[in-house]
Amino acid sequence: MSTQELRVGMVGYAFMGAAHSQAWRTVNRVFDLPLRARMVAIAGRDTSKVAAAATRLGWDESVTDWRELIARDDIDLVDVCTPGDSHCEIAVAALRAGKHVLCEKPLANSVEEARTMTATAARARIDGVRAMVGFNYRRVPAVAYLRELVANGRLGAIRHVRAVYLQDWITDPQFPLVWRLQRDKAGSGALGDIGAHIVDLTQYVTGELITGVSGLTETFIRERPLPAEASGLSASAGNGATPATGPVTVDDAALFIARLSGGGLASYEATRFATGRKNGLRVEVNGSLGSAVFDLERLNELEFYDATVPGPQQGFSRILVTEGDHPYLSAWWPPGHIIGYEHSFTHQIRDLIEAVAVGADPSPSFEEALQVQLVLDAVERSAGAGSGWVPVAAPTVQALA
Amino acid sequence: MSTQELRVGMVGYAFMGAAHSQAWRTVNRVFDLPLRARMVAIAGRDTSKVAAAATRLGWDESVTDWRELIARDDIDLVDVCTPGDSHCEIAVAALRAGKHVLCEKPLANSVEEARTMTATAARARIDGVRAMVGFNYRRVPAVAYLRELVANGRLGAIRHVRAVYLQDWITDPQFPLVWRLQRDKAGSGALGDIGAHIVDLTQYVTGELITGVSGLTETFIRERPLPAEASGLSASAGNGATPATGPVTVDDAALFIARLSGGGLASYEATRFATGRKNGLRVEVNGSLGSAVFDLERLNELEFYDATVPGPQQGFSRILVTEGDHPYLSAWWPPGHIIGYEHSFTHQIRDLIEAVAVGADPSPSFEEALQVQLVLDAVERSAGAGSGWVPVAAPTVQALA
Amino acid sequence: MSTQELRVGMVGYAFMGAAHSQAWRTVNRVFDLPLRARMVAIAGRDTSKVAAAATRLGWDESVTDWRELIARDDIDLVDVCTPGDSHCEIAVAALRAGKHVLCEKPLANSVEEARTMTATAARARIDGVRAMVGFNYRRVPAVAYLRELVANGRLGAIRHVRAVYLQDWITDPQFPLVWRLQRDKAGSGALGDIGAHIVDLTQYVTGELITGVSGLTETFIRERPLPAEASGLSASAGNGATPATGPVTVDDAALFIARLSGGGLASYEATRFATGRKNGLRVEVNGSLGSAVFDLERLNELEFYDATVPGPQQGFSRILVTEGDHPYLSAWWPPGHIIGYEHSFTHQIRDLIEAVAVGADPSPSFEEALQVQLVLDAVERSAGAGSGWVPVAAPTVQALA
Amino acid sequence: MSTQELRVGMVGYAFMGAAHSQAWRTVNRVFDLPLRARMVAIAGRDTSKVAAAATRLGWDESVTDWRELIARDDIDLVDVCTPGDSHCEIAVAALRAGKHVLCEKPLANSVEEARTMTATAARARIDGVRAMVGFNYRRVPAVAYLRELVANGRLGAIRHVRAVYLQDWITDPQFPLVWRLQRDKAGSGALGDIGAHIVDLTQYVTGELITGVSGLTETFIRERPLPAEASGLSASAGNGATPATGPVTVDDAALFIARLSGGGLASYEATRFATGRKNGLRVEVNGSLGSAVFDLERLNELEFYDATVPGPQQGFSRILVTEGDHPYLSAWWPPGHIIGYEHSFTHQIRDLIEAVAVGADPSPSFEEALQVQLVLDAVERSAGAGSGWVPVAAPTVQALA
Repeated sequence: MSTQELRVGMVGYAFMGAAHSQAWRTVNRVFDLPLRARMVAIAGRDTSKVAAAATRLGWDESVTDWRELIARDDIDLVDVCTPGDSHCEIAVAALRAGKHVLCEKPLANSVEEARTMTATAARARIDGVRAMVGFNYRRVPAVAYLRELVANGRLGAIRHVRAVYLQDWITDPQFPLVWRLQRDKAGSGALGDIGAHIVDLTQYVTGELITGVSGLTETFIRERPLPAEASGLSASAGNGATPATGPVTVDDAALFIARLSGGGLASYEATRFATGRKNGLRVEVNGSLGSAVFDLERLNELEFYDATVPGPQQGFSRILVTEGDHPYLSAWWPPGHIIGYEHSFTHQIRDLIEAVAVGADPSPSFEEALQVQLVLDAVERSAGAGSGWVPVAAPTVQALA
Repeated sequence: MSTQELRVGMVGYAFMGAAHSQAWRTVNRVFDLPLRARMVAIAGRDTSKVAAAATRLGWDESVTDWRELIARDDIDLVDVCTPGDSHCEIAVAALRAGKHVLCEKPLANSVEEARTMTATAARARIDGVRAMVGFNYRRVPAVAYLRELVANGRLGAIRHVRAVYLQDWITDPQFPLVWRLQRDKAGSGALGDIGAHIVDLTQYVTGELITGVSGLTETFIRERPLPAEASGLSASAGNGATPATGPVTVDDAALFIARLSGGGLASYEATRFATGRKNGLRVEVNGSLGSAVFDLERLNELEFYDATVPGPQQGFSRILVTEGDHPYLSAWWPPGHIIGYEHSFTHQIRDLIEAVAVGADPSPSFEEALQVQLVLDAVERSAGAGSGWVPVAAPTVQALA
Repeated sequence: MSTQELRVGMVGYAFMGAAHSQAWRTVNRVFDLPLRARMVAIAGRDTSKVAAAATRLGWDESVTDWRELIARDDIDLVDVCTPGDSHCEIAVAALRAGKHVLCEKPLANSVEEARTMTATAARARIDGVRAMVGFNYRRVPAVAYLRELVANGRLGAIRHVRAVYLQDWITDPQFPLVWRLQRDKAGSGALGDIGAHIVDLTQYVTGELITGVSGLTETFIRERPLPAEASGLSASAGNGATPATGPVTVDDAALFIARLSGGGLASYEATRFATGRKNGLRVEVNGSLGSAVFDLERLNELEFYDATVPGPQQGFSRILVTEGDHPYLSAWWPPGHIIGYEHSFTHQIRDLIEAVAVGADPSPSFEEALQVQLVLDAVERSAGAGSGWVPVAAPTVQALA
Repeated sequence: MSTQELRVGMVGYAFMGAAHSQAWRTVNRVFDLPLRARMVAIAGRDTSKVAAAATRLGWDESVTDWRELIARDDIDLVDVCTPGDSHCEIAVAALRAGKHVLCEKPLANSVEEARTMTATAARARIDGVRAMVGFNYRRVPAVAYLRELVANGRLGAIRHVRAVYLQDWITDPQFPLVWRLQRDKAGSGALGDIGAHIVDLTQYVTGELITGVSGLTETFIRERPLPAEASGLSASAGNGATPATGPVTVDDAALFIARLSGGGLASYEATRFATGRKNGLRVEVNGSLGSAVFDLERLNELEFYDATVPGPQQGFSRILVTEGDHPYLSAWWPPGHIIGYEHSFTHQIRDLIEAVAVGADPSPSFEEALQVQLVLDAVERSAGAGSGWVPVAAPTVQALA
């Protein structure tokens, strides 16, 4: 194993912080990499909580101001795991200080912020500073393998994409008003939180871009109790006889139809009201030569229909994407031994470390994430204007002076 | 078994004619009904072909003009199985002659024709003449059972419907220009042919109506060889060195998003370019208390998620809808013995015979089919106008004098 | 359609009688055959019940003694649908009278009777009289297609077969003592009723024979209420305050392991106590080059694993066996339109009619069914003798003088 | 997090060593436990390889003789991850030295060794020294939840268990003769390696013991090339023109039928020749009130059939066992975020640490593993004696003086 280190500082220690920490701890134990990650420090506002998190998650120290991480010389990379409202400030400061940045999705809460961040990253790139966005599902082996299949022409011309991301964690009207339901913190609701994933994932696997959309959004429950305490995607309402309530300011669900740059049609749905669907990201791609289906709740599998085999034996094959000849998997367990959600983060960091080590730009870049943001913005604008068609152009980026 | 007869004349003997004939032959063998169907005569233009069809399909005689069926006294009901362009003329004539009518979907090729037919049916109803439309999938036991579940409140408030009808029989650009690809014969492409089914089915199971849509249509292959011969959904192109071609004048695929009368959101897709999907009608309904999924390729099953059972044991149950306590099934085979596509037609006729016998109006009525037509028309208008929102009003029907 | 007739008489009108009648009524409507089936007469002991059955099921007349069918000149074929205890007497008499015979499985209630029937059939064959046994599942298209795959070497050397036939219709201890639970009527319990199917089906698809077995049987509920009335697989117990009971004299469940003539290993299970499994016949075959899985509750599908395609894309393909290039299906509906349980009977009769017309021996012959009987007999003997190994030899048949 | 440590030494660093290391590294990061695992030292025979393994897997130091671990004062627990032929010597030495022991399954390569180990563990228990066996699949949340369901009576009386563990990693006759194919190293083939898992798992979830068996074993490929190099379940043969070969001395496949202590019947199959099945452990349990199915390739799911809900809505529910109210899962990710194979080891160590901390005996004990060994031994004896019935008695254990 390499003795050269990549020294990491992380901001945030909730759900994403825990997932990223697991990845930083594990990546060099499984993959043979040119740099060895060192978990130097974690930043959070509450002194005792962040200290406990550091101990629990395996960071050498904790600090209470993320600016400390940026000011230090012994940190090479800043991993941004906070809610979207602080991404821009932290990432821009880090990049300007010459730190590589891994930023959780969505890149920002507004297109304007995303543009700023992208321009900053373009400037930093000139100095060899790397910026990457955490669309971790790209690193699920079955997704990476699907991209390979499409890139190798195995699906032919893409005719249809249908993508849904279905959850049900707020169907109960008594579920409290957590930060993810507030526009000022989260920027957007289901659309930005989980819709962003399927926009990125489908563009990634097809290698095509969305060129226009027509959309619809809805907030089914418009007023919710204020939360007593919350973490991750679970929370409880306050216990008062009549708990105080507040307005939900983001969408509960968003649907849109789209056209792809290659001439195909696509549909998207993101919702937190699909009872029974827990983490139901499902994508189907139909091409002129074949089709494929991916389902995150069965992330070790890919269904592939090959229309070039003899007619009578054509069918959707359930490929168990767990073998040594599948992406990322030779480093893990024997055939058929499945991996979990968290492994996508380990793979993400593996790719990031390799990019940093060889001086290449990691993907997805801030620019790619900005383009996703532009799609989501177009959906919101369409939904706000009678679902009329809103074209989406690829972003043009100018490096910030 | 009853000795009183319901004397039937049928027009058309292709795919739908064969399916309906199988049902007319079988219905009294399986169900105990107040009337006994008698297959009196079948009408078609080609003398020898229609005579062969009569022998093969089990009709007592054949005639070469459908008007003969209407003129005869020994026919009580006319079953219209022709392409959509002749539905209006035949059905209106039959109803005016006092014959009950079963008309295949789509009701007509235009809203105008559908309105005429609906008004005629309303007038005929006053005289006890019955009119029904062949949305046969309503009679799949799993679909009927899903409607019961929703009607009994088991899904709660409907939040989401997602419906697709996916086929792949014309993905090959050399597949010829059959009548289903010509607007003057078929009225519409995937939208009217299979999209109509999912519009009807989802409104039927939810008991709600679509109140507005935003849509998109596409014709991927715009020119095809002229057909040598065709039947059902299979055909072959002419053999000439350079076969003559003609323009495809209908949609290959149609997508739309919609709002439901109860406040829910819905998405729809109908396509003939979903490689690997043969008869892929799939509907998912999410409600505040539960969800359900139906897939026509596994039509003996219904997936049901009951959010009212204790949390840890919640899951999508694969109900094998083959038992004696499920709709229609006590008349068939023992537990777990599955039925096929054609049984939906037998059930349809069972319900029609019972309605005729007791003097009740069968459902779906022409009026219900007109409403489906209005939805499809709205989709086409939205698709033609930048996907902008097009509201859909329930039809108002005035009996034709 | 041919005008030459095959005149049929049937004995029995319960579950199997209804299924066979549906097939006789339908076969010439769907398949183009050299003979046209004529449903001449049905025999049963109760005058009014058999008359009602004739009307309902579509037979021209009814008689109260099966010997009448055999004595008549206007009957060419006798279809035996009674419980197993009368198969031998009826089939032997019919064959000796020169009638072709279709006999429901199991061939007989004892090996001795099966031997008599087989010898009689061998003698009749000399005179051009045909005998066939109703292992209808061979005619499920997916099963026939699986046999083709194996015969074409697509699975390579067969290593493993695992077959179960799971039902649950008598898990309730109050389910009454119907004829299927009485040794003198049924001969055997789950073993002979449904175990026979999986023995035949697996030998059929692999083209190999079972060469020895080690088995186990059990009767979980040994005493049951006497039935008030019963038909098919449903029944109700008498209503008396303390209903009379009687002993269950057959097995509720049977398990056995076996060796195949090609060197593979096999396991079998037949039970009526598998809660939730309604008609759960499931067979998996593993060969050196591929594997396949068939499940009767999804009889339109076959899972096929092809180990000769490139490693990363190997997987179990869910083949929808509903296409025109699959066995039997070009006569039915368009792509993806599924068929049901009853179609296996129609296909069985199609093959029988073709064999009769061309003077060929239909399969499965009585000899093949005798061999199945020998396997089941070996299982019972093993179970009765400490599960020790019992070899099974292929039957030697001598035509009865 | 506790500051009190549990100091661990591990023997072996191949597949199991890597899996256990991942668990030791992770357990305190995810679970809040009374002791903190410290990965003190790892033992292996090759100096440089074990040193590299220590660095890679996260152990503070490496040693080349496992006896060093036992001699040291700074080690509290020895984790035995070697092949089965050394389990007895190492575990006995460790227990006698007062070290807690976690021993991989199978407990030993012979019943005699297993008895010695069990007696030693019984003696050590008196002094508060703990011994546990690594049947890690008990700690898969879906398996633990299934045990709860059975224990709470939700399945009623157990009628049937059918369990298979299917792999295909040696179907290629050129796959080399690795240690798992040699009786002196591995003790047994598929039977002991993977058959042991399904014996333990089914007894664990049902709470019943196997009381007798009748079995069959087979070695399909009896001679294989000697290996060049091997690790985990992958290997390559030597490259010589005619590679030297050696005899396979273990079973490739084993099948057996059994009776359970509660009166039910069971069947088992373990094979490495099930083409297409990679890690296909599948267990179905049928009870008088319900059934359940577990499949290791979809280890985040449990199918549960509840026969106590109203008839028409009964079906196998696919429960996504990923929620906070399922065993072990409140410590991991939000709803629907799946875990992988390796998590079972983390859970195993969680339970072990808790047992050590509170002074309780962890389960599965050596005695439980000895009973599994007795079952496997009975299968081999039955297979060697014409598949005759071999009863299995629960072990009687006397603490070794």
